[in-house]
Amino acid sequence: MIGDLKDIFSSAIEAVDPYNAVKNSLRLEGGFLLVGKKGGEVKILLPEKGRIVAVGAGKGSAPMAQALEEVFGEALTSGVICVKDGHALPLKTIKVHEASHPVPDARSLAAGEEILSAVSALGEDDLLISLLSGGGSALLTLPAEGISLKELREVTETLLASGASIGEVNAIRKHLSRVKGGRLALAAYPAKVVNLALSDVIGDSLDVIASGPFTADASTFEEAWGVVERYSIEDKLPLSVSTLLKRGVAGEAEETPKEGDPRVDGVTNCIVGSNRKSLEAAAKRSRELGYKPVILTSTLSGEARSAARFLASIAKESLAYGDPATPPVSFIAGGETTVTLKGSGKGGRNQEMALAFSLFIEGISGVAMLSCGTDGTDGPTDAAGGAVDGQTAARARLMGLDPEASLEDNDSYNLLEGVGALVKTGPTRTNVMDVQVILLAPNREK
Amino acid sequence: MIGDLKDIFSSAIEAVDPYNAVKNSLRLEGGFLLVGKKGGEVKILLPEKGRIVAVGAGKGSAPMAQALEEVFGEALTSGVICVKDGHALPLKTIKVHEASHPVPDARSLAAGEEILSAVSALGEDDLLISLLSGGGSALLTLPAEGISLKELREVTETLLASGASIGEVNAIRKHLSRVKGGRLALAAYPAKVVNLALSDVIGDSLDVIASGPFTADASTFEEAWGVVERYSIEDKLPLSVSTLLKRGVAGEAEETPKEGDPRVDGVTNCIVGSNRKSLEAAAKRSRELGYKPVILTSTLSGEARSAARFLASIAKESLAYGDPATPPVSFIAGGETTVTLKGSGKGGRNQEMALAFSLFIEGISGVAMLSCGTDGTDGPTDAAGGAVDGQTAARARLMGLDPEASLEDNDSYNLLEGVGALVKTGPTRTNVMDVQVILLAPNREK
Repeated sequence: MIGDLKDIFSSAIEAVDPYNAVKNSLRLEGGFLLVGKKGGEVKILLPEKGRIVAVGAGKGSAPMAQALEEVFGEALTSGVICVKDGHALPLKTIKVHEASHPVPDARSLAAGEEILSAVSALGEDDLLISLLSGGGSALLTLPAEGISLKELREVTETLLASGASIGEVNAIRKHLSRVKGGRLALAAYPAKVVNLALSDVIGDSLDVIASGPFTADASTFEEAWGVVERYSIEDKLPLSVSTLLKRGVAGEAEETPKEGDPRVDGVTNCIVGSNRKSLEAAAKRSRELGYKPVILTSTLSGEARSAARFLASIAKESLAYGDPATPPVSFIAGGETTVTLKGSGKGGRNQEMALAFSLFIEGISGVAMLSCGTDGTDGPTDAAGGAVDGQTAARARLMGLDPEASLEDNDSYNLLEGVGALVKTGPTRTNVMDVQVILLAPNREK
Repeated sequence: MIGDLKDIFSSAIEAVDPYNAVKNSLRLEGGFLLVGKKGGEVKILLPEKGRIVAVGAGKGSAPMAQALEEVFGEALTSGVICVKDGHALPLKTIKVHEASHPVPDARSLAAGEEILSAVSALGEDDLLISLLSGGGSALLTLPAEGISLKELREVTETLLASGASIGEVNAIRKHLSRVKGGRLALAAYPAKVVNLALSDVIGDSLDVIASGPFTADASTFEEAWGVVERYSIEDKLPLSVSTLLKRGVAGEAEETPKEGDPRVDGVTNCIVGSNRKSLEAAAKRSRELGYKPVILTSTLSGEARSAARFLASIAKESLAYGDPATPPVSFIAGGETTVTLKGSGKGGRNQEMALAFSLFIEGISGVAMLSCGTDGTDGPTDAAGGAVDGQTAARARLMGLDPEASLEDNDSYNLLEGVGALVKTGPTRTNVMDVQVILLAPNREK
């Protein structure tokens, strides 16, 4: 069954490969661009005399750009994207910048300037295609005039230290940017915009992926300033920042676009790849291998070992009573869990979940489980995750390892490595968070 | 939908009412006693000249005894049971003792003596019916000769203080008892034994319910002594206790019966009520009300708010994608969660789970959730649990309440009371742990 698990995980990754994701979401047909899945496409008239321009940012945006070049061929006028160091690919028409991630550097700014001016130059006859993916927020950084990159970093650090929530941090960030929070949509108007996003966030919110450069922003200058007051951090902010926020509150700086604004409402959005899509591919492959697929959730979150407990309780119920599904079955879940570090071992959230799961099913036949990051990495390790079954814990004990102690020490890597239960894929060039698959065998061996 | 939730929960309780549970598990037919569900019954020849005797212990054993008296009528020779103070019921043939719970007292011992001698008096022509339920371990207490109740309590306290696991504590307890760990089965032999149990434990293990007086014990004197050595508590044990354990290790005291021993293997066991059975009743009632039932698990455990998170993630997936089930659907779960107390508020694990759930589904229409203890109590409160929907949190905020702060302070009772979301049933006379039901409406309102 471990072989089947790896097979199913490969299918899950393949479905959200950035290149495939764009290829499968775009079609040219009789002067139209069709965006989305067959049957549910949006039809967009291709410009007869205008330009077709691409911009993008994110770790997966280079293969997305390759696919775009193949779809449009000669019709593509120009483009510029920014990817993480080492993630560039040879492109024909689209220019690739590399920049630092997760902390933006001067090169992110240069790319941001170039992208903003490419977008600003467009007119109503033009078509803009945006290629966003995880990491796009750092890679596409362009602070409002008068604010330096260093000041921007200070603001983020101050906010995080003050205890502000990620939502509060983003409300402020979007109001200090010339690209985030829908501002690129303002710059592109009145060009037509097709926004293609590979989602690496739970819920696939377009305003969160790459900080939503083409999406309405629900927050306001007033709310941003409210955060400053709530945490009493006005004195700690650079003058340029507090000045801009105050000017915004006074109506002297342009607000981010809101829902109902035709400049963002007119954007055609398409989530080309997401955790859900990878789960659907895992379901399809499971069925081919003879397991009835049951997708439980694409928003799995919380502590990794709690998730393992919950998934195990569902697997055990099915083995004992055939509920919620009768084996052979493949339970599929995805999302992003967390690990509260208490030990000093080596591991990642997926390896920890797999290790915890192996303890919950210890001694039970006919059940196996995989938990892996779709980007091929899990924590600071060279593994994507782990794949375990009812014998994993016993095998570890026989080798003199102590699975409970390893879990306690957050040392899942060494335990799973010891019993050969690590899954290593190398970098997959995509990222739609994590995938879990649990297989229950058709006839339970005793 | 809240009304439907309460309706479904009532059905869940009714199915595991101790009286109904026994009534539905026993039938007399042509000189035979049929034990179990129709179709899967075990057939036991009724004694022609021998006696039919009942013994039992547990909070729900009085209504079980009532049912037994109705089934057998005049054929029942005699019986003796021990229930918690205030839980006695008028019986015709069976004598009822009341004793203290959860800490046993002298009355538990007196009942234990009477039960042991009733059982010991049986011969091969006799039939013994055992009626076990939650609390039976404390209510049926009889230490080995030479050990006092006070000494027994000291041992338990020492073990718990030493950090021994519940499994380790039970291994020792069973070896210090004249009734636990299958010893009543030894005393009853060669009488026929039918052991009816209402399970209040995850996994329905017969060796755990009421400490398994008629069930093989997997632990040995050697293992029990191993626990003493592991935690270096020999000096803290009463001399009577360490002497007995050492004699047992030396083979001078009788070991508890093991699997393969005909005296325990010959017992006919029947779980007459369990969490699973209550979930099946909830499923049946859900279907009648128009919701497709999906039983997720009867072994839900872990932190209450984590369980809420996972259940919510599954509900949301179904609302968004129709997986794992298309609404109208009723997701059903059961088990026993825990709450790690951080605040000083009032509540219980079910109320806390309901409150946490209400936050995960805040603002979403067409979803409602109930979490309740089947015994009608939840923590040190007068409520069985709570029932919430997507508007609960908003209603609380409108009233000036703060659901997040209440959750943080473990103050679910006051929050739920404020918005009228408590569920109060009064004592239900049964206990098969907790039940959760999540309803998704057929047509999602916007």
